[in-house]
Amino acid sequence: MTRVFNDPARFAEDMVHGFTAAHPDHVRAVPGGVVRAHRPGTAKVAVLTGGGSGHYPAFCGVVGPGFADGSVIGNVFTSPSAAQAYSVAAEAETGAGVLFMFGNYAGDVMNFGQAAERLTGEGIPARCFAVTDDVASAPAAETERRRGIAGGFTVYKTASAAAEEGASLEEVVRVAERTNDRTRSLGVAFAGCTLPGQREPLFTVPDGRLGLGLGIHGEPGVRESDLTTAADLARTLVEGLLAERPAAAGDSNRVAVLLNGLGATKYEELYVLWASVVELLTEAGLEPVRAEVGELVTSLDMAGCSLTLTWLDDELERLWLAPADTPAYRRGRLDAAAPSRTGEAAAPRRAAAARAHDEPATATGEAVAAATAAVQALRAARTLLHDEEEALGRLDAVAGDGDHGRGMSKGVDAALAAAEQARDANAAPAALLGAAGDAWAADAGGTSGALWGAGLRAFGSALPADRAPEAGELAAGARAALAAVTSLGKAEPGDKTLVDALDPFVTAFEERLAAGGSPAEAFAAAAETARAAAEATAGLRPKRGRARPLAERSVGTPDPGATSLALVLGAVAATAGPAAEPAR
Amino acid sequence: MTRVFNDPARFAEDMVHGFTAAHPDHVRAVPGGVVRAHRPGTAKVAVLTGGGSGHYPAFCGVVGPGFADGSVIGNVFTSPSAAQAYSVAAEAETGAGVLFMFGNYAGDVMNFGQAAERLTGEGIPARCFAVTDDVASAPAAETERRRGIAGGFTVYKTASAAAEEGASLEEVVRVAERTNDRTRSLGVAFAGCTLPGQREPLFTVPDGRLGLGLGIHGEPGVRESDLTTAADLARTLVEGLLAERPAAAGDSNRVAVLLNGLGATKYEELYVLWASVVELLTEAGLEPVRAEVGELVTSLDMAGCSLTLTWLDDELERLWLAPADTPAYRRGRLDAAAPSRTGEAAAPRRAAAARAHDEPATATGEAVAAATAAVQALRAARTLLHDEEEALGRLDAVAGDGDHGRGMSKGVDAALAAAEQARDANAAPAALLGAAGDAWAADAGGTSGALWGAGLRAFGSALPADRAPEAGELAAGARAALAAVTSLGKAEPGDKTLVDALDPFVTAFEERLAAGGSPAEAFAAAAETARAAAEATAGLRPKRGRARPLAERSVGTPDPGATSLALVLGAVAATAGPAAEPAR
Repeated sequence: MTRVFNDPARFAEDMVHGFTAAHPDHVRAVPGGVVRAHRPGTAKVAVLTGGGSGHYPAFCGVVGPGFADGSVIGNVFTSPSAAQAYSVAAEAETGAGVLFMFGNYAGDVMNFGQAAERLTGEGIPARCFAVTDDVASAPAAETERRRGIAGGFTVYKTASAAAEEGASLEEVVRVAERTNDRTRSLGVAFAGCTLPGQREPLFTVPDGRLGLGLGIHGEPGVRESDLTTAADLARTLVEGLLAERPAAAGDSNRVAVLLNGLGATKYEELYVLWASVVELLTEAGLEPVRAEVGELVTSLDMAGCSLTLTWLDDELERLWLAPADTPAYRRGRLDAAAPSRTGEAAAPRRAAAARAHDEPATATGEAVAAATAAVQALRAARTLLHDEEEALGRLDAVAGDGDHGRGMSKGVDAALAAAEQARDANAAPAALLGAAGDAWAADAGGTSGALWGAGLRAFGSALPADRAPEAGELAAGARAALAAVTSLGKAEPGDKTLVDALDPFVTAFEERLAAGGSPAEAFAAAAETARAAAEATAGLRPKRGRARPLAERSVGTPDPGATSLALVLGAVAATAGPAAEPAR
Repeated sequence: MTRVFNDPARFAEDMVHGFTAAHPDHVRAVPGGVVRAHRPGTAKVAVLTGGGSGHYPAFCGVVGPGFADGSVIGNVFTSPSAAQAYSVAAEAETGAGVLFMFGNYAGDVMNFGQAAERLTGEGIPARCFAVTDDVASAPAAETERRRGIAGGFTVYKTASAAAEEGASLEEVVRVAERTNDRTRSLGVAFAGCTLPGQREPLFTVPDGRLGLGLGIHGEPGVRESDLTTAADLARTLVEGLLAERPAAAGDSNRVAVLLNGLGATKYEELYVLWASVVELLTEAGLEPVRAEVGELVTSLDMAGCSLTLTWLDDELERLWLAPADTPAYRRGRLDAAAPSRTGEAAAPRRAAAARAHDEPATATGEAVAAATAAVQALRAARTLLHDEEEALGRLDAVAGDGDHGRGMSKGVDAALAAAEQARDANAAPAALLGAAGDAWAADAGGTSGALWGAGLRAFGSALPADRAPEAGELAAGARAALAAVTSLGKAEPGDKTLVDALDPFVTAFEERLAAGGSPAEAFAAAAETARAAAEATAGLRPKRGRARPLAERSVGTPDPGATSLALVLGAVAATAGPAAEPAR
């Protein structure tokens, strides 16, 4: 929803004020909109984009050399008035005529049309061009009734580049027509935007569904369907556009592509989608030419995206690739920071990429049995961590970033795979735990990944390289793991971290073994101690640890790291694995 | 919420795949992240940014000449592993050492630290730098415990620029330290983001409230308060930072500024906010140096923003302004599309800016009374349209863009003001309606603005210039308004537009007058006809009009344009104004 504004009725004016203040090198404010900060060096056709606001960077974000000469800025989702269009044109024109470019909406057609008439009547040649790229807004037989959506970006770009080259008004209009004839867009919406000052969104889409062809102001789409995977969505968009391949495309297979986010669908999601889109385009024999993936024509914070294809010819490709220097879109070679283009200039020292794990030492039969027990323990941990992934994430979200469950799942998956591989190579538990720790850290990342990796590796280091560990060696392993974790994480008992569960576990494990308990009994009892200790972290106030805020809200919630550790220890104890097998 | 993904566990990998596919000229994928597509021409310090993903364009979006040499990409909101950091560094380094730069989070500190140790052990000098700009995350006495948020952008930028100039590793670290010492950020959150694959947001903020200092992963903030105006928010952010002005700033008054959007707070809102921020900074004696307003460090689709100030010295200002060429951030002079820098090269023909309204003709006393009645009628229309603004918006949102209520309010406000001015200048109703129509169109914009403007002006044109209109002239005015509206809008009766109410109104008005009714009676009866006709549009299917989709969902809903017209006619009839006053 739109939340930052003063008087909603003055939203567009306030926006233009801030926009021009932020980009004085590119634009200056004039009544009705903005024009380039610097007048072109020679007379040229003035290309003016425009329409309602709320679509940034459309339309004012692309004013500057190589792109538009000015932009007429209406209220949110409202066509600017004819008086505004006339005013901006009067400021921007340099004697070679004016072309107003906009999406095909009734208000824009009317108001820009009136302004063009007035300019023409005063001796300034002026034309209008309405973009009609949205295939969902009318059937193929009635393309002239289609709406303009993100494809306007491409049409404005090529027409503007032609104007920058010195083309006449008629030629610029011809380029706009040819680009529009070869441009098709298809969009989807997941959720509506809210106009400044309003409480309810303009439209809604049921949770887990998508509206195919829903317009950028919430105009009706063609159908609703389930929102599934990014790959499915890519197929819907690509197939929808290929079915609408325009006759004007001829045998062109080179396409300018826009994968456009509408506001709340973010770059990460667009890149995930792009990975599938580019594959499907290539499969279809198309070659993307400088694809633009990002926010080009938005709709406030609407969730959704659109795909646009423009089948290029040589002229359009040249114009599409021509440089442009605007607030929101800068393309072309920078005269600075010139990199080597050979790719081989500065030789790396290249750190000796000794990234393969050490070859596990071959072990005795008894050691192999112990290693198998370790694999079983990891497998039990894995089952448990996957079951608890969401719960751990919720716990972590209280004062952290909610990634603990996911991180532990990723880590244990990698650790188990590495451990199985080591076991299959007849590794002893020492090497097996080292490999598992390295894999956990590498795949999980994050704080917990680093700590679990270090802990497992340290545990393994304390064990014999070629035989099953004895009870005392197991105790030493646990103690070594604790030392590694506190050394790396710098946390002490009472800091509300996993140390609060690990420290009492190690002590209890040692004490029970010293009192003559079997490793299995000692481990189970110590795991129970750890469980109680993890629960007790709910009463602690986080005290230290870098960048860990004093989190009032986490007091009363157990620490997620201590909780997951205790859960894993309990699961391992239940397998009776690591403790049951070794010699006493 | 995050909606576009395949396997949530592979979100970051899929994202990197699409990102590198979209930007082959800038980056290439390596295990653990990305590096520049083209190796630097000479040995230089390799600056590597990194951290969890979900913050695009942080961190991989700023890899390229003038900025980072590579980026280490963790899972969403999760530190990358030490193995990833090592791997990217091994690919990126060119013999002059490595600097890892990241925000001050425990996992990043640990994992990058381990990677730096390993590189150093292998003979490659490697250092770490953790950014601590977030003033809300720890008190001023413990800056080293603060988190890194958007200010990392500035710190990475200046350090990278120094590395690009050929500075040694120690010098680059010194630049990073000095920038960090002079950089402060403060953020607010309005709503939380949702991790891929999860149903619930990471955190929530009550509607209409803001969380001050809430971290970019939902870490606890310092307090919650009401979300009021953009101007208030600007004051909170600016005052919060000025209170934390770092000692290292000395007497500097030149500041690099970032006004950063977190994902769902869009450019329009940021520009509205910027207009207030820049004013407050100037009042405080600070001079912004190339302010960046936009999405620099996001948090998926989190709603919120942050302000960052870096007090510059000459060296930092040079480095801040140095060119950079990356996927998401390109600064510096383009060698193309060179504009004239004089600002005066191409002389405009400058359309004769005859934008002042015609001077209203002075009218008789009777005409003034009629003009006063017209003003009263507009005032009644204004009251009604403000009361109904939201309802009309909702009606319009069914098949349109929801702006009808707002547009009518804006239009009638402007029309009334112009009419009052004309009345005060003793204008006759003819000139008064012309001025009102022009003002309505200019201020409201949109389809309805153009149509109401044309209709009012046409109505006025049919009236006598210097006296009160007679009954027949009023009928002719109504007919002229209808003609203007259909000529401009190209709609016919039955198309589900305001013509469906205007056309029967005009006919009924003419018939009632012809049957001998008084203008007041005739107007009231015709207004009732219009009301019924507007309601009947609920049964119509929109048939034509450019870019007006066949809106299944609008069948059953009255047309908003016909509805507002009927409402206005009814309100005017109730004043008994225009019809009661004129001679018969």
